[in-house]
Amino acid sequence: MILIQFLRHFFGNYSPKDQKLIAAIKQITGKKPSNLNLFKLAFAHTSSAKENFEGFKESNERLEYLGDAVLGMIVAEYLFKRFPYKDEGFLTEIRSRIVSRESLNQLARKIGLDKLVVYDTKRKTALSFKYVYGDAMEAFIGAVFLDKGFKFCRTFIIKNLLDAHLDLNQIISNDTNYKSKLIEWAQRNGKTVRFEMVDEKGSQHQKQFKIQVLLSNEIISSGLGFSKKNAEQDAARKACEVLSI
Amino acid sequence: MILIQFLRHFFGNYSPKDQKLIAAIKQITGKKPSNLNLFKLAFAHTSSAKENFEGFKESNERLEYLGDAVLGMIVAEYLFKRFPYKDEGFLTEIRSRIVSRESLNQLARKIGLDKLVVYDTKRKTALSFKYVYGDAMEAFIGAVFLDKGFKFCRTFIIKNLLDAHLDLNQIISNDTNYKSKLIEWAQRNGKTVRFEMVDEKGSQHQKQFKIQVLLSNEIISSGLGFSKKNAEQDAARKACEVLSI
Repeated sequence: MILIQFLRHFFGNYSPKDQKLIAAIKQITGKKPSNLNLFKLAFAHTSSAKENFEGFKESNERLEYLGDAVLGMIVAEYLFKRFPYKDEGFLTEIRSRIVSRESLNQLARKIGLDKLVVYDTKRKTALSFKYVYGDAMEAFIGAVFLDKGFKFCRTFIIKNLLDAHLDLNQIISNDTNYKSKLIEWAQRNGKTVRFEMVDEKGSQHQKQFKIQVLLSNEIISSGLGFSKKNAEQDAARKACEVLSI
Repeated sequence: MILIQFLRHFFGNYSPKDQKLIAAIKQITGKKPSNLNLFKLAFAHTSSAKENFEGFKESNERLEYLGDAVLGMIVAEYLFKRFPYKDEGFLTEIRSRIVSRESLNQLARKIGLDKLVVYDTKRKTALSFKYVYGDAMEAFIGAVFLDKGFKFCRTFIIKNLLDAHLDLNQIISNDTNYKSKLIEWAQRNGKTVRFEMVDEKGSQHQKQFKIQVLLSNEIISSGLGFSKKNAEQDAARKACEVLSI
């Protein structure tokens, strides 16, 4: 098996389909993959997964879990160094916008991953397919990390994804008003929303507020911030997440 | 400034207090720090933070944000490689137990970080102090990462923290019953809890369930799992988080 891979590597004895996949990966990362199977797995959506000899389903979900963590860390470090005077609240918020499912879905399409994902359309359901490309983006990052190591993966993410495709200024200024979003949703659904301050800590000059969101009198989330407005936004954002708004 | 650091490095011209700190860090990581200030910052709880020339408060919270991401990724990779046949649901659950605030608080005490954290007891409030050592643990990891790089930090986390202080088998078997926890809490607080299945996907042999928790008829969380029981546990765990139970 190793010998076959070795021969294939040197004599290019890949099937035309595999050769196409190798070229596509090189196009995206700048390097040919060492272990093509990792990338094949990254593109295997659950719907197309087959069981292996132990009855374990091989799909890209494990790689997605790994890629999510790798991406989260590299984006965290990138923002940490790029914004030396911003507090962790800012860094956390911008990071969550960059790695959001919507943002990764777009990114996946931009680099052409949507053409590589394999899924079974017969088993298509709205829930599992909404973010199929964003999920493949994470799995792809997991594969790059395992195949080429941390340093290569970091450079790939920063140069080929963040610098090449994301407009950081736009992401920062795109301040979704979660409070309005939540209130509008509640009105449409005949519910009431109330924001309630539950804690204040810190000195006069550096107070931190904790605010809860009550939906028809039930606590559904809480948020922190150095101003009441920011704590409300944070709590409202979490409420939107919980309610899948 | 660089010259002073250079001289200090070679002639050991540190204050006795700094020398003690250097020895403590070497004890924990196996290496003397290159940039002691990073570690001083890691031990500076918000309550003791001073403003710098730009009015920016220097505390360990930025390092905590970075360390959290670094730790999350390294634990993700560690579990991914250690459990090649476990699905991402298992890996995610075990990771969240390892990096939980309670677990990090204990870990911090085990390696002696509790003796190094600097805080202002006058500004002590229950909310900010509950996880002061766990937070310092994350900030410390952020400092190790910046000071020594990814590889050293990875080895430090795996050998000196995970292998040395965590009993993985115990963590895996410690299956908190979130459903009971939630139901008990609801009874004490005069609320009703209902679990409701909202989606099923996948084939007959590999069905995934989505279940929502309704607290007094309001949706407060949802969970996924390959069995109804697991989906309920996942949903109940998230509900406990939302409600800070």
